[in-house]
Amino acid sequence: MADNGAKTGGKAPVLGTDPWRVAETAFSGDTLGVVESLFALANGYIGTRGTFEEPVTGDVASTEGTYLNGVYLREPIHYDESAYGFATHNNKMILVPNGKAVGLTAGDEAFVHGDSSVEAYARALDMKAGMLSRTTRWRTKAGGALDIASRRIVSLAHNHLMAFEYKVTSVDYAGPVSLTPGLDAGYGGTARAGDPRAGELSIRDCLIEEMAETRTDGALYTHRIKDSDVRVVSAIRFLTDGATVTAVPVEGDRTCGTRLTADLAPGESLTLTVYVWYGHGTDAFALTKTADAELFAAVSGGFAALVAAQAKAYDAFWATADMEVGGAPGVEQGMRFGMFHLCQSAGRNGDSSIGSKGLTGPGYDGHYFWDTEIYIVPFLTYTCPEVARSLLQYRIGKLDEARARAREMAHTKGGLFPWRTIGGEECSSYFPAGTAQYHINAAIAYAALQYLTVTEDWSFVLEGGAELLFETAQLWLDLGHFSERRGGQFCIHEVTGPDEYSAMSDNNFYTNAMARHHLKGAARLAAEMAKRAPDAYAALTARIGLAESDVTDWARAAEKMYLPYDEELQVHAQDDLFLARPKWDFASTPAENYPLLLHYHPLVIYRHQVLKQADVVLADVLLSGAFTEDEKRRDLAYYEPLTTHDSTLSACIYAVANAEVGSRERAYHFFEETYRMDLENRHGNTHYGVHTACMAGSWMGVVMGFAGMRLQGEVLTFKPYLPEGWTHYSFHLLFKGRRLDVRVDAEGARYRVATGAPLVIRHAGTDVTVGADADTVCAAA
Amino acid sequence: MADNGAKTGGKAPVLGTDPWRVAETAFSGDTLGVVESLFALANGYIGTRGTFEEPVTGDVASTEGTYLNGVYLREPIHYDESAYGFATHNNKMILVPNGKAVGLTAGDEAFVHGDSSVEAYARALDMKAGMLSRTTRWRTKAGGALDIASRRIVSLAHNHLMAFEYKVTSVDYAGPVSLTPGLDAGYGGTARAGDPRAGELSIRDCLIEEMAETRTDGALYTHRIKDSDVRVVSAIRFLTDGATVTAVPVEGDRTCGTRLTADLAPGESLTLTVYVWYGHGTDAFALTKTADAELFAAVSGGFAALVAAQAKAYDAFWATADMEVGGAPGVEQGMRFGMFHLCQSAGRNGDSSIGSKGLTGPGYDGHYFWDTEIYIVPFLTYTCPEVARSLLQYRIGKLDEARARAREMAHTKGGLFPWRTIGGEECSSYFPAGTAQYHINAAIAYAALQYLTVTEDWSFVLEGGAELLFETAQLWLDLGHFSERRGGQFCIHEVTGPDEYSAMSDNNFYTNAMARHHLKGAARLAAEMAKRAPDAYAALTARIGLAESDVTDWARAAEKMYLPYDEELQVHAQDDLFLARPKWDFASTPAENYPLLLHYHPLVIYRHQVLKQADVVLADVLLSGAFTEDEKRRDLAYYEPLTTHDSTLSACIYAVANAEVGSRERAYHFFEETYRMDLENRHGNTHYGVHTACMAGSWMGVVMGFAGMRLQGEVLTFKPYLPEGWTHYSFHLLFKGRRLDVRVDAEGARYRVATGAPLVIRHAGTDVTVGADADTVCAAA
Repeated sequence: MADNGAKTGGKAPVLGTDPWRVAETAFSGDTLGVVESLFALANGYIGTRGTFEEPVTGDVASTEGTYLNGVYLREPIHYDESAYGFATHNNKMILVPNGKAVGLTAGDEAFVHGDSSVEAYARALDMKAGMLSRTTRWRTKAGGALDIASRRIVSLAHNHLMAFEYKVTSVDYAGPVSLTPGLDAGYGGTARAGDPRAGELSIRDCLIEEMAETRTDGALYTHRIKDSDVRVVSAIRFLTDGATVTAVPVEGDRTCGTRLTADLAPGESLTLTVYVWYGHGTDAFALTKTADAELFAAVSGGFAALVAAQAKAYDAFWATADMEVGGAPGVEQGMRFGMFHLCQSAGRNGDSSIGSKGLTGPGYDGHYFWDTEIYIVPFLTYTCPEVARSLLQYRIGKLDEARARAREMAHTKGGLFPWRTIGGEECSSYFPAGTAQYHINAAIAYAALQYLTVTEDWSFVLEGGAELLFETAQLWLDLGHFSERRGGQFCIHEVTGPDEYSAMSDNNFYTNAMARHHLKGAARLAAEMAKRAPDAYAALTARIGLAESDVTDWARAAEKMYLPYDEELQVHAQDDLFLARPKWDFASTPAENYPLLLHYHPLVIYRHQVLKQADVVLADVLLSGAFTEDEKRRDLAYYEPLTTHDSTLSACIYAVANAEVGSRERAYHFFEETYRMDLENRHGNTHYGVHTACMAGSWMGVVMGFAGMRLQGEVLTFKPYLPEGWTHYSFHLLFKGRRLDVRVDAEGARYRVATGAPLVIRHAGTDVTVGADADTVCAAA
Repeated sequence: MADNGAKTGGKAPVLGTDPWRVAETAFSGDTLGVVESLFALANGYIGTRGTFEEPVTGDVASTEGTYLNGVYLREPIHYDESAYGFATHNNKMILVPNGKAVGLTAGDEAFVHGDSSVEAYARALDMKAGMLSRTTRWRTKAGGALDIASRRIVSLAHNHLMAFEYKVTSVDYAGPVSLTPGLDAGYGGTARAGDPRAGELSIRDCLIEEMAETRTDGALYTHRIKDSDVRVVSAIRFLTDGATVTAVPVEGDRTCGTRLTADLAPGESLTLTVYVWYGHGTDAFALTKTADAELFAAVSGGFAALVAAQAKAYDAFWATADMEVGGAPGVEQGMRFGMFHLCQSAGRNGDSSIGSKGLTGPGYDGHYFWDTEIYIVPFLTYTCPEVARSLLQYRIGKLDEARARAREMAHTKGGLFPWRTIGGEECSSYFPAGTAQYHINAAIAYAALQYLTVTEDWSFVLEGGAELLFETAQLWLDLGHFSERRGGQFCIHEVTGPDEYSAMSDNNFYTNAMARHHLKGAARLAAEMAKRAPDAYAALTARIGLAESDVTDWARAAEKMYLPYDEELQVHAQDDLFLARPKWDFASTPAENYPLLLHYHPLVIYRHQVLKQADVVLADVLLSGAFTEDEKRRDLAYYEPLTTHDSTLSACIYAVANAEVGSRERAYHFFEETYRMDLENRHGNTHYGVHTACMAGSWMGVVMGFAGMRLQGEVLTFKPYLPEGWTHYSFHLLFKGRRLDVRVDAEGARYRVATGAPLVIRHAGTDVTVGADADTVCAAA
């Protein structure tokens, strides 16, 4: 997890290589579902797929979806054979009423994508403006033509708002035109049987209507989420301009809207501006009040003001996150596209995280996985640390659930985070590749420790960060044991590592290595906190029952951690038994049998040496300083041929690993699997949503791969080179209160501290002081 | 599997220690569900729980149930997270219309167990007669008393028939009495949430009514099993005697019956005799014809004839199966009770087997497990070989399903039998303790090879037995591999052994050892068949694609089979990693936390050295000749303290193992857990049905444990002793065309060949020729 890719691929949309725009010039039914994911807009709270305002012909698969991050339906999980401690409930990201639909008719004819005659079409996602826009020229059957132009934003500045402008201009049409904005609370529910990765819910299964209100200039719904007391309020307010309009409320089964009719003559326009508000909570009355007030403010401010605020918010994002890639426009566009989605998808309210599909589609029920902490938080830590902190804050907020789960799993202390969840409880109904992945705890700790080092945000320590690190560390002691048979080394049994093509292994190298990192870091932090904030430390340890001997045990377990190594092969063993198994027979495996998980029973896969994704090599990359380059080279040489990359979390790691050992061609080969993965629908399942971890992985490919960036203790180190065919690449890193700019070209690397005090970095093994005045130029590695 | 016992125990009924009767003298609501299982009657096809004819008060848990062996509902299995190759459908043993219910009223008052005033009560299962009988004196509210006397049989002689006699005699009552026999097709469906071992179906979920016919002297239903074209016909026919009766048909929702009313004066009786017929098939018309004809014959013959035929059939059974235990009536009764249920429950039509609960309750959905082949078939092989063969024939009939499953599991050859099933497909929805138990193939082979040696039934070889052994052997080659890292030894990865407290292990000792036995036996049989029946052999190998090189490979794999052994501990290792794990902390585990599976997540259990049931020790017992007594002693000493016996399949094996190494007190301790396990409801779950494997296990305890019987090659060996407090014990074994009688008392062991030629056996290591003329007396071991 997460993601199980279909390596057979799917149809790829045509979207150009403009550096800041992803643009299509024709409607294509074949790739519609994919483009709906790609053109999804979000602001960390509201996410809405890039579906059209108008309906689409029934012949074409289209998936409507508007989601609220962190808001879910809690549903019992049924097992034919259950057992103690199995996850009891799923959390499914709900659908909320669709407020961006507009019915358009000219005379008696309704516009339908794929059916109506279209003479011109253009749609583009502007990543600088944070806006999706479209123009369509519709030739009606009666002969007249109308231009449709729409612009849509989901406001980064106003978390509960989305808005769009919808303008119809008559080219040579004369007659009545009607627009029907409204809220649709009855959509969804297309089942796609047989694919375990889909998660198609109907909004009817999620929301129970409590109030519906239709007005001539808007509508409002209050729904209760089934089996909960959480209310979802959705409301729209709209204005028209340019023509005299008759407004008639239109209510249907779970829809409420307004039909706006005007007569247009050639050259005349009717512009509709719609503001959509979403919120959730237990107090429906308060929510409707807020909806009213915020919609009133939005309408008063106008669409242009929202557009400007959106551009400003994205300017701020790109100021630290942007990356240039010279001479490879497709790469540059792909990189920005990925960062754009990461920015959009990440929760910002401390009570939500980032789903494996962001807020772009129904895949994996909108669950949060370790993808967040291992792949995405690092990117955000270096570019948008406040968002990184919010994601960590989400985990802190779920510590009670983690502690409860640890008790349920018979651990007498500590907290165990769920493998997949929204609300904080374990939602994995297949524990061998779910709950068994104890490395989730280390992933959270890894991200938190890195965040601390990079940001030096001590308030994070005091506001839950220490508790998070300590409680997750406690668990390892209870899970593992000092093994007499292994000379007192610390062993961890019956866990599943990142490679889900093995399960329930003993001493998974990745898990043990990451646990060691975690335990060391937690012990270090405990010592620092005891010194720097003794009262807070005393209060915390008393509250969570942390003894000094526990801290000593962390250090001892880290010290004694068993890391399996095979003397014969001279490689780290993925686990105690992996290397004894027969290798997968790749030669006899037909191409259509990938991904293996869709064609072989887990037992068949588990029985062989075959990897779904980086495991040992991931540890080598994340904990780079802990292993020699020779070790890493041998690990890579052994495991790479055994890896199917059936997960989209794999290629990026192999790109970084190959770059580190100088296999530049291989590095680029793997990098190519990442930076346009969704744009080209390479795993054939982008219609379920984009792959956020892979997007962050492509950032890792450039920054950690080509630029060789690592965090070694407190120091940023680099070993940069320029991939063939590129003229240059550049990016920024926020580090210890500074913005460090890095630019690599044919001449070498240039470093500059754009803001903040000079900084000592390490370039190709040599310490270099980087200042603000001028670029520090170093030869390429 | 199967059985997960609740070690906390349940209330035990009071049933006496009469050697041939299990008798209760009072109605007890607390133990009613248990007694309903114990008093269940069956004939291998029809099984009906020991419920009363009359209704029971609602305050008391009673589970109605009549079942047909091998007849099931096929239901899709739902997974929240599915994967390739997961079992898609469950097979649930269906309920069929209840034909043994009789409503009884006197005046306006209905008799209800637990509510009505009862002055005398006795109920007994007669194991010699194969009959359940009861007397009840009912004091009506109006003051008059009536005696009820009922006798019930499920006919061993007539597989589709059950019958009962129901007699009401007025003691001092005068007035109208009515009896309402009929068929009830609307019962069942009590859910017991939270217990994975229950399987409570409603008959309404199983059967769709196609025809209902009510007559004054009977009724008939034709139902179609949901989602199938299989019809179930149930029919009753009845007679009355002793009084003038008015008959009125009474039809209700899914019931059809007849109200029979008569006036009784003190001393007068009304006797009702009911014949019930069940059958299934696709041709409903033919079934109803057969039902009519067989019911007519039964009615004509009369109840006494059926009773006599039943006694004769049981006489024949006991002639070979009976065991005497002198000086320990509770043991003798318990042993007979177990054998009685084994006789009743075993399918005899070649298309059914024996459920883990027999035909006595809804537990485990009526599924067949390895219990049949490892525990039950051996008992039947030595006592009722024709029934043993029928059970093996059932597996032969499911070879196509086994081959299909093997392909689905990516095995290019051979057949893989399902872990649990009725119809032949894999029904386990939890594969780590289901499909992963590849040892099911070895279990079937073990039983077949033993059957062949004991019976010398060559027709079995020609009629599917060879195919069964060969196809199951083929699978090991594809599953395992000759490991370079282990010097070319044959290793088997990612399987679960009998001990379900470990899962998905590499080189499970039991599995490897049993596979070796299987491969050797199959290779031996192939050679013998090639010589003895060359044409049949050639035809078979051609049909199943068996190459001579495959047979060579079997021998080579057997030869090279890797059997994990720990040099340090000097014991066989349960698997490659078991001994490296920490031991379960038994000292800190409260008694109420057993069975562990109901209180700990599988991962917690799997992580530790803890056994649910015998694993290495089971191999030591079953393959006794393959290991030295010292090895077996050390294995036992190591694994016994780690075993919870949370399965009822465990204690019997430890009894045998302890007996073998001379730990007689421990042997008896474990034996005590078996022979009255259900009679005393020791695992607290007998209300779901009796534990057939445990019943066979108690036979193993005496024959293999105390008498030390083993089959070593072609020779029966003994090492008998007399348990303390017993005056003697005796049993029979059918062996190579003879009946061997064995009797052990204080003086030693007496052997006699009751029928057939003299036989060389081995007593305490010495060959002894046993003849028919006189007992061969040997000193105890």
